[in-house]
Amino acid sequence: MDRDMRVPGRAARLAGNAPDVDAIVVANGASPYLDSAFWYLTGLRSGTFEGSFAVVNPDGSMDVAVSVMESETARRGKGRKHVYPTAARRKEIAGELLGGRKAIGVNAGKITHAHVEFLRKAAPEAEIVDVSDAFSKTVNVKDRKEVSTMRKACGIASEVAKSIPDILREGMTEREAAAAIDGAMRDLGADSNAFDTIAAFGPNSSQPHHKPGDRKLADGDAALFDFGCKYDMYCSDLTRTVFFGEPPKIMRKAYSVVRRAQEIGMAEMAPGAPASAPDLAAREYIDSTEFKGMFIHSFGHGLGMDIHEGIHVSSNSTHVFEAGNVVSAEPGVYVKGVGGIRIEDTVLITEKGPRRLTSFPKKLTVI
Amino acid sequence: MDRDMRVPGRAARLAGNAPDVDAIVVANGASPYLDSAFWYLTGLRSGTFEGSFAVVNPDGSMDVAVSVMESETARRGKGRKHVYPTAARRKEIAGELLGGRKAIGVNAGKITHAHVEFLRKAAPEAEIVDVSDAFSKTVNVKDRKEVSTMRKACGIASEVAKSIPDILREGMTEREAAAAIDGAMRDLGADSNAFDTIAAFGPNSSQPHHKPGDRKLADGDAALFDFGCKYDMYCSDLTRTVFFGEPPKIMRKAYSVVRRAQEIGMAEMAPGAPASAPDLAAREYIDSTEFKGMFIHSFGHGLGMDIHEGIHVSSNSTHVFEAGNVVSAEPGVYVKGVGGIRIEDTVLITEKGPRRLTSFPKKLTVI
Repeated sequence: MDRDMRVPGRAARLAGNAPDVDAIVVANGASPYLDSAFWYLTGLRSGTFEGSFAVVNPDGSMDVAVSVMESETARRGKGRKHVYPTAARRKEIAGELLGGRKAIGVNAGKITHAHVEFLRKAAPEAEIVDVSDAFSKTVNVKDRKEVSTMRKACGIASEVAKSIPDILREGMTEREAAAAIDGAMRDLGADSNAFDTIAAFGPNSSQPHHKPGDRKLADGDAALFDFGCKYDMYCSDLTRTVFFGEPPKIMRKAYSVVRRAQEIGMAEMAPGAPASAPDLAAREYIDSTEFKGMFIHSFGHGLGMDIHEGIHVSSNSTHVFEAGNVVSAEPGVYVKGVGGIRIEDTVLITEKGPRRLTSFPKKLTVI
Repeated sequence: MDRDMRVPGRAARLAGNAPDVDAIVVANGASPYLDSAFWYLTGLRSGTFEGSFAVVNPDGSMDVAVSVMESETARRGKGRKHVYPTAARRKEIAGELLGGRKAIGVNAGKITHAHVEFLRKAAPEAEIVDVSDAFSKTVNVKDRKEVSTMRKACGIASEVAKSIPDILREGMTEREAAAAIDGAMRDLGADSNAFDTIAAFGPNSSQPHHKPGDRKLADGDAALFDFGCKYDMYCSDLTRTVFFGEPPKIMRKAYSVVRRAQEIGMAEMAPGAPASAPDLAAREYIDSTEFKGMFIHSFGHGLGMDIHEGIHVSSNSTHVFEAGNVVSAEPGVYVKGVGGIRIEDTVLITEKGPRRLTSFPKKLTVI
């Protein structure tokens, strides 16, 4: 059997998860509008593949359209390759592959409007169907190889999290601290950041998504670091909050509440348990303290090739945990004008319960 | 006049560039599906704003919907703010802002299919119109502040490009070299990479988008580095190719052809000139040499907040250069199995012709 004609396992699983369509299209826009499912399905580990698209057929076979510029890179990937030298040929290929299809499934949150219009022209009779749930279902359960890769990505971030007390210096800016963390991850073998590192000092830490700026580390500051790396295309994600000098009493309390909230939430993580449970449990606990209403985001999210994928670990989540799910566990408490505390691990759901893939000291650390 | 009610200049220009719609929506999906136009229009310089959207009205005023989690960050930005605590309220806000509109313009390559469906529900009668050309037209001409920011981003990348001979060591892997470059940019004040740094040694450099791997730098290798940083949300982009030890004769020739091709192409850059001219001229020259057919991508692209935006500097481009355009000038020659040469600068079009914003030695460098 020709290597390129074999049925790719992941494509077949995706097709099985979307039985009501007669094609599924994964399409890349211009960077960074690139759908990681393209790499997930093809098994490729490099290339940009802007404008490339893959068609998953009901029998689980796959066709992949790539530009001549990346045809060399694409050769190593799964699927029948269709190389286009021009935009006109790309359009023709879409017509050849999709003409006559009746229902084309797309990853609605990852495909651009422009690409959907392109599909409509290639298959004028086809209905465009959002099958993003099928995509989520397919990637939510990590196989052994994926877990091992994520463990590696998490190991790198964990090493760096452990070294935070050695990285910090009085008067260091948030930008400098973030750069030091990123450099340390790269030195340990990370390919890149999984997302822009958050380094937030003092009152800035009360903004969950603060962008590192020129604020200098000062005595009594909470110093919050939310970061992760990509390793072989898979992400890690953790948050460590430490104190630089003795913090205000309220921050000490907040730390202990958040730490306990993470334990309470994680205790709800098991195959068969609703993914809403950790959020509800952690939130109920936080809301029973003086920090009521200050946990202003959800407990966690799935991650894998994307830093946010599939599973919502939130109060209104409808997901039910399965072994092989990988999610973040990241309760936080944000006291406006004072500071925020967040503690986050990347967690694998196993038959025996939750297992942290990240690891760093959870004891309140005053540097 | 209330600060938040003032007419934002950029939004007004965008509205003026899309006269046929009665609303323009800029919408963010999940990271990294974030439209930089959201930051361009609001003037915000931080935040993730997943799910946020802005509505630009025909009078140039703007409404901005943000989650409660980022409402604090959003306060500093332009536009009337509408804070949603829940997805249901977000939907209501969309209905309030868009209900009754007849034609909603979108940035078709930057808005997801899911978001367009969301708009269709908010304004069932509205036609969805691709006004991405209006977005391009708006961002294509950089103002003085933007040029100064890009000059800073380009300065950082240039310093690092100059230091490449000091960074390289025999036996260093591509990954290590890329990490060293990224670290050096951060040390010089870069916020992040503008894109994943390409470091390609020897035959790997014949793939224009090679991902750095474990190949070690060896005698005679071409070593190609394509990188840039983000500084205050604006990008830089350059490529320097050097040789580690005496290269094969064909690579020496290729270097001199590419260097000349960049000059030939850049000579075609002036306000009023077609953006196809640099590509056609450089390609004609390369195709007149023994490297015929080996320039397998276009001459350049616009850049700004996005690493690829607006202008195509390609043979079929319909753009006409204006003063204030910023584009890359990056001819290349790729000899399969041997190696590739690319030389790239970020270039500002001025009334007096092209001005490089990046700067590094162009003379063939053998380390």
